[in-house]
Amino acid sequence: MNDPHPTVGLDDVVHQRTRLGILALLDSGASMEFGALRDALHLTDGNLNRHLKVLQEAELVATERRGSGRPRTWASITATGRSALAAELAALRALIAAAEQ
Amino acid sequence: MNDPHPTVGLDDVVHQRTRLGILALLDSGASMEFGALRDALHLTDGNLNRHLKVLQEAELVATERRGSGRPRTWASITATGRSALAAELAALRALIAAAEQ
Repeated sequence: MNDPHPTVGLDDVVHQRTRLGILALLDSGASMEFGALRDALHLTDGNLNRHLKVLQEAELVATERRGSGRPRTWASITATGRSALAAELAALRALIAAAEQ
Repeated sequence: MNDPHPTVGLDDVVHQRTRLGILALLDSGASMEFGALRDALHLTDGNLNRHLKVLQEAELVATERRGSGRPRTWASITATGRSALAAELAALRALIAAAEQ
């Protein structure tokens, strides 16, 4: 019996291109402001909002409003999000290793 | 000006989990029979059919019917498909490298 192909275990919530970008960026540091995240990933406000909502519902990302006057949204990765991203990256490493054989 | 984030250039046609699995498997050898591909990726007939159709329309995969009596479908990756997969894997390598910094 062979091991399952590395793509079989991928979770679409994490693997989807935009959400993978959001998680990877948030994993690399502290929280990021909405506009910075949007610009780094070349997204529209609506697109970022939609994907943040999916990530929040899966408890992979948390958001909070900060500041007075015009408060801004800041996003951060949760511990669950870090684990999910680590599992995704491990599967991608296995995929790349298989491709290089 | 920083380079765009590695996920920005990902193509959903190739990046989607199941299609990435199909392309990676076909890239590793010659053509594969429909049932072997379905089983290797833990798919249903309908799911594999749907994704093969997307890949064919993008000219990344070709299929042909072989055999007499009950002919079977065989799938193979095209030269365009190999290039697209190579670009995807390069972006994933960049993502992993950034995550390891």
